[in-house]
Amino acid sequence: MRSRRRLVVIGGDAAGMSAASQARRRDPDLDIMVLERGEHVSYAACGMPYLVGGLVGSPERLIARRPEQFAAQGIEVRLRHEAIRIDPPAQRVSFSSSDGVTHVEPYDELLIATGARASIPDIPGAYARGVFTLRNLASGVATWEWVERERPGRAVVIGGGYIGLEMAESLRHRGIQTALVHRGAEVMSNLDPEMGALASQALRDIGVALYLGEQPLAILEANGRARAVQLSDRELPADLVVFGTGARPNSALAQEAGIALGAGGAIRVDDHLRAGIDHVWAAGDCAATIQRVTGEPIWVALGTVANKMGRIAGLNLTGGDAAFPGVLNTAITKVGVMEIARTGLREGECLRSSLDYAAITIEDRTLPGYYPGSAPIHVKLCAEKGSGRLLGGQIIGGPGSGKRIDTIAACLTARMTVQDLVDMDLAYAPPFSPVWDPVQTAARVLLSEV
Amino acid sequence: MRSRRRLVVIGGDAAGMSAASQARRRDPDLDIMVLERGEHVSYAACGMPYLVGGLVGSPERLIARRPEQFAAQGIEVRLRHEAIRIDPPAQRVSFSSSDGVTHVEPYDELLIATGARASIPDIPGAYARGVFTLRNLASGVATWEWVERERPGRAVVIGGGYIGLEMAESLRHRGIQTALVHRGAEVMSNLDPEMGALASQALRDIGVALYLGEQPLAILEANGRARAVQLSDRELPADLVVFGTGARPNSALAQEAGIALGAGGAIRVDDHLRAGIDHVWAAGDCAATIQRVTGEPIWVALGTVANKMGRIAGLNLTGGDAAFPGVLNTAITKVGVMEIARTGLREGECLRSSLDYAAITIEDRTLPGYYPGSAPIHVKLCAEKGSGRLLGGQIIGGPGSGKRIDTIAACLTARMTVQDLVDMDLAYAPPFSPVWDPVQTAARVLLSEV
Repeated sequence: MRSRRRLVVIGGDAAGMSAASQARRRDPDLDIMVLERGEHVSYAACGMPYLVGGLVGSPERLIARRPEQFAAQGIEVRLRHEAIRIDPPAQRVSFSSSDGVTHVEPYDELLIATGARASIPDIPGAYARGVFTLRNLASGVATWEWVERERPGRAVVIGGGYIGLEMAESLRHRGIQTALVHRGAEVMSNLDPEMGALASQALRDIGVALYLGEQPLAILEANGRARAVQLSDRELPADLVVFGTGARPNSALAQEAGIALGAGGAIRVDDHLRAGIDHVWAAGDCAATIQRVTGEPIWVALGTVANKMGRIAGLNLTGGDAAFPGVLNTAITKVGVMEIARTGLREGECLRSSLDYAAITIEDRTLPGYYPGSAPIHVKLCAEKGSGRLLGGQIIGGPGSGKRIDTIAACLTARMTVQDLVDMDLAYAPPFSPVWDPVQTAARVLLSEV
Repeated sequence: MRSRRRLVVIGGDAAGMSAASQARRRDPDLDIMVLERGEHVSYAACGMPYLVGGLVGSPERLIARRPEQFAAQGIEVRLRHEAIRIDPPAQRVSFSSSDGVTHVEPYDELLIATGARASIPDIPGAYARGVFTLRNLASGVATWEWVERERPGRAVVIGGGYIGLEMAESLRHRGIQTALVHRGAEVMSNLDPEMGALASQALRDIGVALYLGEQPLAILEANGRARAVQLSDRELPADLVVFGTGARPNSALAQEAGIALGAGGAIRVDDHLRAGIDHVWAAGDCAATIQRVTGEPIWVALGTVANKMGRIAGLNLTGGDAAFPGVLNTAITKVGVMEIARTGLREGECLRSSLDYAAITIEDRTLPGYYPGSAPIHVKLCAEKGSGRLLGGQIIGGPGSGKRIDTIAACLTARMTVQDLVDMDLAYAPPFSPVWDPVQTAARVLLSEV
């Protein structure tokens, strides 16, 4: 009788634990070991800005499931265990435990789910006390504790992407004077500039001081503690500095094992999430995927994608046959009452592609003008000329605006045309929408351009 | 030089005025006359419950555009003019003006957009003072005035469909003691019973007294004024009675002209909205259409559909070539904080069809449990076994639930499968959604059933 087959998972967050759970459901006899270098598995990373903002209560609420709960399912979780080498020919992985001892474990299947790390600019003072990034739950908790304990009066957020915006909003929610420094002309480089300008304005509207087209030269310290952020022409006083300057895939371990990297330096995988070497799979923030609109490689680091990839990996490494179709680069956030969302290609991406496209932007209302709470909404759509195929959408507007992006995401998934969207039977009642949903009003305007 | 071509439109609400406006844009030389028997054109009929509820302010706010505004565009609107006969061979329409004089006008193209009328049970007292239906703006205004002037303490709403629910909510919003009488076992016959039960509960939660499985036998009067609604075993005291007992298409005029009727007694039209007789078109609540999921005839009376049909009619009767693809029977409403929506086929409809289907219902949260405002959401999905094609969805839940139906509507439009929905890249951030959107969580559960 042969010994039980063993799955080793490197990384115990969204992708890794989704895969482990899926694999457990499909194969009760599989031996499953998860190596996690941090102190937690299965936590809601995207909730950390709201923890800092005081909306969540305690860090425990961000933990979806604990190691004991996984253990009860027969999933062995080893915290503070860091994988240090993968040996694909021997089907072995080496890792160190917190006591510094190195171990070697054989695997029948290996899932690399090492995630991404915060990308921090190499400037003086970047590691001073009072300077934080949200790279894992421990760092999120450290930021929260600093806010709770030190009661900072002034904060500087560096970076105007999703994390930067969410942190700025959360710090304002705490009543902290907040400045945001971003190197682009408008925040949210993932949007076209005129939509980014609306996001910038939303930040100003909640009292965030914006420093656009700027990069920090140093974090100035006093007694080893951050006191200000140095820009080219001024100092911004700060009792707290938060970096939201993007992320990089944790793909070095895979690369050292001879696994090829792809978009954004992430692990290249096929549609079954095989990493190009027998019995090695990759999923989540460490892995690249494809943009479904163009079929081109793309790297995104988002919890929702990591969960979906983890599920597919768990199916396939237990003998399933499921394809991960890629992403639309759909994303959503909010600043105060303004909701911000995007999917597919923005105009800047259309322009860089070989696509012959048209783009329009409309301003409409979230609800009929006579209904209480009706607020402005801006919708931008891009479509291919000739075919009329939708290529992407961006939305910024008041309450109820953001999740309308899902309708556009569904259109992109099915490669629908602008006409298809105009003709679609979407839900209407005054508390929810104008009689033509704003995304359809945008489509009607775009119709004459494609 | 031949005289200008003339379009006559019968009915000046959503479909009629959308068509007139579209036709004007496409053909500046067209002579356009709209005959409207009421006192207003182009008003937001769906806003009337909220007018009564005191949310809108004044009735004027429901009027989208006035006859003078249409006149400025060269669209002649004749209010209080009722079409009484269509003579297709002669291409003429007869109508009476408010002074009782009969006129005859020739047409080159005729659009019938006569809408629908409230269906009122034939019981004693149905036309007593204090008894209302929302059949047009005038009747909505009359209801509003009654509430403003008489300050009724107790109201009875008869009928548990959209209008009934919205009226009950509006009357409760006014602080009026409200009972609702509905002949079905649960309100919202457009939902499956277990989803209808949640809608019934939502009414109870805002303090509406429900009388289910009941029909009114009479409206009891005192001095010509409603004082109670008689049920089989009790009287419900009422200073105000509102009928929300469904609608019927206004198709008699068309039928008398030899035009065939179809689903629900509405005018049968082809996909270009031709009414089967040369130069005669029909659109809006008076016309039948098809359910896109099944391809079968269906009649719906909804403002959003009327607008879409009107636009298509306006295109085609000015020489365009646009097909109206039908509807999904998508609809949405709310009761207090509970949002209620449906699209496609409910299980009861699947059961009556020849489809081999599976149906599941899940309870999930609108947002991650740790995020403030997270509320329960129930999602029901139906799909075809074998193909996995989605057939319909129903949603009831807290804030942010309802418009999620649009994602399902988009799936139905593109004939997507359950798997397509599971794989879709929908928007996620804690203020908007759990990491798996609830519609995708439902799809994941359904996956193993199809």
